[in-house]
Amino acid sequence: MSHYSDTIAAIATPSGIGGIAVLRLSGDNATAIALRHSNRTALTPRHATYSLFRNGDEIIDDVVMTYYPAPHSYTGEDTVEIACHGSQYIQQTILDILLNSGARMAEPGEYTQRAFINGRLNLAQAEAVNDLIESTNRGAHRLAVSQLRGSYAQRLKELRQQFVELASLLELELDFSEEDVEFADRQQLLTIVRGLMDECWQLQESFRQGNAIRNGVAVAIVGAPNVGKSTILNALVGDDRAIVSDIPGTTRDTIEDIVTIDGIAFRFIDTAGLRSSTDIIENAGIERSLAAARRAQIVLYIVEAGTEADTIEKNINALGDAIQDKTIIVVQNKTDLYTPTPLAIKNITDTVSISARRGEGIGILKKKLYSSTIGNLADDTPIVSNPRHLEALHHITTILPRIEHGLKSKLPADLIVIDLREAIYHLGTITGEVSSPEILSTIFSHFCIGK
Amino acid sequence: MSHYSDTIAAIATPSGIGGIAVLRLSGDNATAIALRHSNRTALTPRHATYSLFRNGDEIIDDVVMTYYPAPHSYTGEDTVEIACHGSQYIQQTILDILLNSGARMAEPGEYTQRAFINGRLNLAQAEAVNDLIESTNRGAHRLAVSQLRGSYAQRLKELRQQFVELASLLELELDFSEEDVEFADRQQLLTIVRGLMDECWQLQESFRQGNAIRNGVAVAIVGAPNVGKSTILNALVGDDRAIVSDIPGTTRDTIEDIVTIDGIAFRFIDTAGLRSSTDIIENAGIERSLAAARRAQIVLYIVEAGTEADTIEKNINALGDAIQDKTIIVVQNKTDLYTPTPLAIKNITDTVSISARRGEGIGILKKKLYSSTIGNLADDTPIVSNPRHLEALHHITTILPRIEHGLKSKLPADLIVIDLREAIYHLGTITGEVSSPEILSTIFSHFCIGK
Repeated sequence: MSHYSDTIAAIATPSGIGGIAVLRLSGDNATAIALRHSNRTALTPRHATYSLFRNGDEIIDDVVMTYYPAPHSYTGEDTVEIACHGSQYIQQTILDILLNSGARMAEPGEYTQRAFINGRLNLAQAEAVNDLIESTNRGAHRLAVSQLRGSYAQRLKELRQQFVELASLLELELDFSEEDVEFADRQQLLTIVRGLMDECWQLQESFRQGNAIRNGVAVAIVGAPNVGKSTILNALVGDDRAIVSDIPGTTRDTIEDIVTIDGIAFRFIDTAGLRSSTDIIENAGIERSLAAARRAQIVLYIVEAGTEADTIEKNINALGDAIQDKTIIVVQNKTDLYTPTPLAIKNITDTVSISARRGEGIGILKKKLYSSTIGNLADDTPIVSNPRHLEALHHITTILPRIEHGLKSKLPADLIVIDLREAIYHLGTITGEVSSPEILSTIFSHFCIGK
Repeated sequence: MSHYSDTIAAIATPSGIGGIAVLRLSGDNATAIALRHSNRTALTPRHATYSLFRNGDEIIDDVVMTYYPAPHSYTGEDTVEIACHGSQYIQQTILDILLNSGARMAEPGEYTQRAFINGRLNLAQAEAVNDLIESTNRGAHRLAVSQLRGSYAQRLKELRQQFVELASLLELELDFSEEDVEFADRQQLLTIVRGLMDECWQLQESFRQGNAIRNGVAVAIVGAPNVGKSTILNALVGDDRAIVSDIPGTTRDTIEDIVTIDGIAFRFIDTAGLRSSTDIIENAGIERSLAAARRAQIVLYIVEAGTEADTIEKNINALGDAIQDKTIIVVQNKTDLYTPTPLAIKNITDTVSISARRGEGIGILKKKLYSSTIGNLADDTPIVSNPRHLEALHHITTILPRIEHGLKSKLPADLIVIDLREAIYHLGTITGEVSSPEILSTIFSHFCIGK
């Protein structure tokens, strides 16, 4: 890996006007460049030093400079943070002056990339930094914090270690292959491989949860006209709206149909259409429901309480492949008017009885939405939320059955080792034991400048 | 003045997503509240301390806490700055936690207000902090820096001191008035008062410059059809556009017709209309020119080079009261086709000959725009840019002639002293020797929260 010796600069705080803003210099010349524009002659490590920021004779601002010496800085390099008044003019002027004094404009994510290259973070942690910055709800935030704190990467490292040991055992066998000695008990190896398969599949499966936490869960509300679909949506959204609208940057438009349950965002898709679907043209209603169901992960199938199980089953089956592999929750609405019937229908994930008009049962419906998404995962379960990691795991879970087959059919060790090495490679790409400039530039280009 | 003992909290950096964000706690409990959520047991003054930020058992973020002990902080109170990852969720969550732990949400400008109350800044400096944050160009920025650094306030203090001494002399006379003694030479007092009048008028006049620097100067380009108005505007705007568009937050719409000359923004008003005024309906053209001229401080009156002075004078006079007290610059355009004539017209501020098509003379035109606005002010001239200060000065320049008259007509000292005290009061409101809760709340309510 290359050593970066040039010094980079960027505005690290959000763009715009504020009380203060922070610029960040990182690299060998960080202190030299900062001091060139200061009335100080030195910066004490980690001491918030009051200073003028000057350009020649002209005073640009009163600033606070904080010097973080290598290697105990975010990037692992010499870093100076300059806190100035938060005028856009001042921020831009100071940045221009730093660039004119030999700093280079930081590329997106370059601070974090340097932190990775200097061993301050592994690759999964570096990616978690970006997830953390972009987190907009409690679920995504908790996921990012847990990944940043390293337990997830630790688990992957351990997994990789198991693969490496497995490969070593087989390679040892290989070295003595002339002597026809079988060092490792193949049955025992098979047990290890099956354990690894289980774990990798579980990680791969966790992406469903991870993705839900990160990006929210699409939910379709379908059912015949006048069963109370819009009343249910209003009841779900109702008391949550105030909380969501507190998050800065979310607009009324985008929050309208989002319900956040314990940090997971549930997005009700195409509901504008559904909500106004009081039309009696049955075909159009069905088409709309099918389209919504296809795009959803969860389908809430609404009926009036007391509807016969046969009818419900027939109607749900009519949705055909649009609901294949989906979570389907049958909601018996209008319990204030009718008595719900017990339902035992094939392919149905769960049922719940509510009166949307009276707000009864809405809490239970929310709990079922939540648990059908997250299940009963413990807090320390490693969850995959990054599509790049999922892709690597997908490679591994494709390779593992080949390894299993190879061991069972007593294939030569060298052939099995080739597959194992490939699995090890893919695991390594997640935490960054294996990386290439291409991988890195793809990852860090998603970051904002200044991080 | 009251002592603020409660602890305030706010996000100090611009709102939005960034690499990092900074929250600020100020008040007696700042460190106690910060440490309650830290894994540290103490904060070393001015040391950038790495810390977890926790809410009970839940880890919210890795942060850097910096403790600025009273009185050497921005507010003069105990202050803790918390630098966290710049996710909106994290910023908002940490703020909520601080508020739940006994901090109060800071009001707009409350940090700076506390800095004023604790004697860290005078009132004019406090106002300059806001000007600094809102400065969008070099001129406004330089003005704010110079006011923040205190020379302006220093000059006003000296002025006030002169008024106080004058009053003392007259009051001394008053004490011995029974004895009919005249302690001060009234002629000498008159000279002092006239000096003060000059200075106050000069300050009052400087508002024109100050306001131009802060808010830009409105310029109208008027003239008959086909004299090259739009070509001139394009030539003026042309090479400046790239620079202006570098300033974040300015939109193409608003920058289109702004030309920045050495930090002063010249806004060309109603030019969209003027630019398309190739219509031949003369009346409409004149109406538009009149409207633009009324709203402008500077009128560029464009003619083809060689137009006779009589014609120009007649046409300018036709603009009537729309150009009263305005700076009028006659621009003889198309010098590539015609030869300019020497002009000596009454009421004209300046003349310039250019070829907008060839870009000749544009630099000279810019210099004339600049100098007609700023004049030849030295860099250390105190400039009034704040309407509140202007109002105070206006009171004083209304009072001073009364004082002059009183001294001349040998009015009793006690009557003159009443006027002097009033002038002293108004001078004091500028720098804050005199202030009231009403004045303060008006001033600081214009600030953003977090400053």
